[in-house]
Formats: sequence, C-alpha cells, structure tokens
Amino acid sequence: MARETTGFRKPINSHDPKELSKMTVTLNSGFEMPMIGLGVFRMDGKVMKDFIIEAIKKGYRHFDCAAKYQNEAELGEAIAEAIERKLVKREELFITTKLWNSDHDHVLEACQDSLKKLRLDYLDLFLIHFPVPTIHTGVGNASSVKDKDGVLDIKTNISLETTWRGMEDLVSRGLVRSIGISNYSLLLTRDCLAYSKIKPAVNQIETHPYFQRESLVKFCQKHGVCVTAHTPLGGSVANVEMFGSVSCLDDPILKVLAEKYKRSAAQIVLRWNIQRNVVIIPKTSKKERLAENLQVFDFELAKEDMELIKTMDRNHRTNIPGKFWGVDIYQ
Amino acid sequence: MARETTGFRKPINSHDPKELSKMTVTLNSGFEMPMIGLGVFRMDGKVMKDFIIEAIKKGYRHFDCAAKYQNEAELGEAIAEAIERKLVKREELFITTKLWNSDHDHVLEACQDSLKKLRLDYLDLFLIHFPVPTIHTGVGNASSVKDKDGVLDIKTNISLETTWRGMEDLVSRGLVRSIGISNYSLLLTRDCLAYSKIKPAVNQIETHPYFQRESLVKFCQKHGVCVTAHTPLGGSVANVEMFGSVSCLDDPILKVLAEKYKRSAAQIVLRWNIQRNVVIIPKTSKKERLAENLQVFDFELAKEDMELIKTMDRNHRTNIPGKFWGVDIYQ
Repeated sequence: MARETTGFRKPINSHDPKELSKMTVTLNSGFEMPMIGLGVFRMDGKVMKDFIIEAIKKGYRHFDCAAKYQNEAELGEAIAEAIERKLVKREELFITTKLWNSDHDHVLEACQDSLKKLRLDYLDLFLIHFPVPTIHTGVGNASSVKDKDGVLDIKTNISLETTWRGMEDLVSRGLVRSIGISNYSLLLTRDCLAYSKIKPAVNQIETHPYFQRESLVKFCQKHGVCVTAHTPLGGSVANVEMFGSVSCLDDPILKVLAEKYKRSAAQIVLRWNIQRNVVIIPKTSKKERLAENLQVFDFELAKEDMELIKTMDRNHRTNIPGKFWGVDIYQ
Repeated sequence: MARETTGFRKPINSHDPKELSKMTVTLNSGFEMPMIGLGVFRMDGKVMKDFIIEAIKKGYRHFDCAAKYQNEAELGEAIAEAIERKLVKREELFITTKLWNSDHDHVLEACQDSLKKLRLDYLDLFLIHFPVPTIHTGVGNASSVKDKDGVLDIKTNISLETTWRGMEDLVSRGLVRSIGISNYSLLLTRDCLAYSKIKPAVNQIETHPYFQRESLVKFCQKHGVCVTAHTPLGGSVANVEMFGSVSCLDDPILKVLAEKYKRSAAQIVLRWNIQRNVVIIPKTSKKERLAENLQVFDFELAKEDMELIKTMDRNHRTNIPGKFWGVDIYQ
C-alpha cells in the first residue's frame, strides 16, 4: 500500500539526487518504487542512450518502458553503460516494462524477450499494458491485428485471470519483483484483486486534472494497489496532435497557481498527483525538462489549491487507442 | 446470436398481439426473446396487477424485473392471474429477473427466492444486475452496505467468474433457460466470454441516442451476445429527477423525425434501437403509453435518418448509481 505517511509530501531539496532517491512508495510486494520516473513512450531510440544517462545523472532512478514502445534495447544499452560507468548500481534502479496485448498467452516468453532487450536479469515491475488480449504474431512483435472490418481483433478465448497466472509465475521464477496492471477500470481491478494470488502492486492509468478519476484512484489505494499516472501532464502536445485531445496545461487555473507558487504549470500538475499519493512518470525529450519535472518535492500545494484543481475535472481522456483500433475499448 | 435477418425490421401490423409475439430474436441459448418488453423498474406494486394484465392484453409477452425492484411478488401475482384467466400461457411469456449485488455469493438461493416471489418454476432469463459484488445481508434484501466513509462496500474476494459459475449451475438445474449479464463494459463482457462455459445470452446495458455505445453493441453482437437496452428512452423524467441527467426526447432532431414519420419521439427512439438489433424494455406506468411503445414494428426509419440519429451521440449516461453509492463504478 502506498505509504500513508506524508514523508514524500514534505518539501525536500530535490536538486540532490540522493535526497530524491528517498522519495518512494512501498508497494504491496514489499519493494520500494520511486515516486517519479521517466516515461520513455515515443522516445527516439537514436538519442536515448545520452538522454537516459543524463537523466540518471540528474537523479532519475525509475524508468517506465514497454514492449510496445519498441525501444527496450536502447534503454537497456543506456542502463548498461550507466552501470559500467558507475553512475548508478542496478539495485538503485527501478525498471518497469509491459506485456503487449498480443502476448497475453505468451507471458513468459514475452518477459524473457524484454529482459534480454533491457539486458537485465530481473524487472522491478512488469505490467499488463492493456486488459485487451489480441492475436499473437510472435514475441516482440507488439502487433495489433485487425479483422476484416478494420476493427482490432480482440480475443475472447483467454481470460484476464489466465494472463495474471502467467504474471504470477514470473514472480515465482524470480524474473520480476512486482507485477501489476495498466489501463484497468475500477471493476477490472476489483476482479483482479479477487482472482489473484499475488495482488497487483500497481495500476498504471491515465490521470491528470482533466481526468482525475477519483473513484478509481481511491479504490486502488484502499486496496493497496499503488496508482501510477501515465500521461500525468494531460497529454501535452503529442496527444493533442495524435488524438485531437485538449491539454490541461493551458488551463487558466493552472496559470494562476503557477504564478502563485513561481513554478511551471507542469510542476503544479505533477505536485498535485504526488499529494494524492500517485506516482508520476512524465515523459520529456528535452534535457531542461528533466530537471524541471524533478523539482516537485521542494514545495507543497495548499489544501485550498488542491480543492481548486479538483474543480478542473472534466472526464477528458486524452489517450484514445480506439482511434487506431477502430473500437472504443473503454465502452 | 441476434438474428441477422431483417425479419423484425419489416413493418407489420403491430396492433395484433399475435403478430407482435413473432417479433423475437433467437438467443445463443436457442430460446426466443421478444424484441420488446415491459420494464417494471420503479413500478408501484399496488397498481401492478391491473397494469401487467392490461399489458398482456395489449400484446406484451416479455417482462423485465429484478430482485432490486422489490416488486417481483406483485409481478408474479399478475402473471398467475393472467394465466389463470387464460389470457396467456406460461410458455408464451418471457420473464427476466436479476441477481442483486449483495447475492453474488448466494446465486442459487437468490434465484430460488426470485422464483418463489414470481410464482414460477423457471425463469426465461436471469441476469447479473451489476458486475459489483457487495456485502451479503440475507437473500431478498437487495442491500447496498456502505463503508465508514459512506462509500459502497465493494467486495474484492469473489471474482465475476465465481458468480458466473453460480449462474451456469442454475441452467444445469433447469431453474433458468438463459443467463446473462447487465451493465458490463466491453472488456468485462470479453472476459466473461473467455471464462464462461455457457456464454452470456444477453448484456443489458443503458443505450439510447445520447449514449449509443456503438463499440460495445457491435462487440456483443459480433460474439453472439444479444444487447438489451435499458433506459431506452434516455431516462425520461424519472432519471432527470433522480440523477439530474438530460433526456434525449426533447432533442430537436427527434422532433423533426417525429414530425416526418408522424410518430412520437419515443417511438422514433425505440424503432432506432430495433433497427440496430437491440431489444428494448421501455418502462411506463401510463396505459396509453403501453400501446404507443408497441407501435414500432409498422414503420421503418430510412438509412439517412439512422445516420442522423448517429450524430446525436454525446456519451451521456443517465443512470448514475454512483450518486447513491459514493463511488463511480464506471471509472
């Protein structure tokens, strides 16, 4: 369960990587996860090595990848070099990757493939990327096969419990320390809690001020499932371009708060999630943003400002994979 | 699977109860379900006997009840009297009731309790009312126990597969002809298809022009799960009062179509769902509306008008049980 103490809420000097590494939550598996990580979705493999090493120098210890991102090998190369250069030790890092939809019935092979690409002998966290099993076309392909109508061919012959048994097996084998879920609704999470022998440690979901999902966040936290926010900045430019969604970063309320706290709107949003005990994995490809996104432990949003952000909720999902898949999986 | 023929789409003389009774879909269980039924949610038990008998006289053969409605006994009394008066035979009727949340771990007893109240020795269709198991407080109580924070106490120790095994057992015992689900999302439906030995025959969901849920409807129909629309009129006055939602019946597009076809807006909406192969169970407590709601088989909406209604979709759910439960179960 996410620590109920306010340890990570108290302002600290987050310019110091050693201090930053203390900002963790304890998962229900007993392992610690840093409250902030670097998401590498859409990160260009060619520039990744230098960028990841720069992030490690700045204090990042938690990296969030996925088979689907097709850049596990580049992340692995960067990690290997950072360890070789003694910038960091393996045990100081927290590495997450995710099982793609087309590998639900090949969990072990998919995990082994990710480990090989990442050059690791264990993962800190392995997540089911979506509760959506699709046609398998070979491990590492991360495919999304469609039917004759151009609609994602969703399999109906493998239950999520079966997939979860595969995930639990990875823990028994010592390949993975913690296992979790991603993009699970409240009721899918509930069902996973019911059929699991090893409870999910994390549910990684989209959440930001325009999509606060308070019932889901509270349900997970009540039952010891740590919530990680993907798209914690509300999608920013990439999702506006990809899905036509609206970013919360231009909202007048955030501008007012940014002014008040002398921070960027992004820092206000990240801090808001931290104060909800939600882990954040903002992605950036700009080195100056690496530092900016970390500077969220040395100030605190007042209660009334947390309430003000609450009023921004508008049930606005910005990640809409259905635009590619021809089916709204969230209906 | 819902019949792919256009049998029930062709205009017929729906003033004749015998003609109406032919308007059915064949469920994946092999049984026929009338395309139109009378929902009895919020129907006053005191006036029910006369009203149900009137409905049977007008041609209704399909009645949709639930343990939660707390009026199974009154429906049962009306059915018994109609059969005794030879207005209808049991085998001509299609009776649905639903397992309440607090009875997921007492499926057999709950079904037996419903049968007893309904004075029946079998149900045509038994549905899991919500994919939300809650604390059991005795069969027939239909309770919704909350935790100390005023939030519905949702159980996390019974999986939906376990509940479904209980439902399948009812079929083996001959207590129920067809079993199904209600208020299941696309991904919960997919999972049920994966773990079920007997596939769900029906998913009863809210759908109307303001909440069309095309992906969910098509997914169900592709996999042989018949969709039944609850709240097919968009909630009407009751939901506007209870949940503050907006009814589609006042929409200018429906007014134009009503004018064009010389029908009521309600008839246009009901006909639209029938042309989507969606079964409808409009509730009314007005005798004149009983007839009106049946008069939807003697005209056909043109393709361009079906397309026009498509533009009305606005992802507007009108049944929001979270307002009573302190949790948005659909997050």
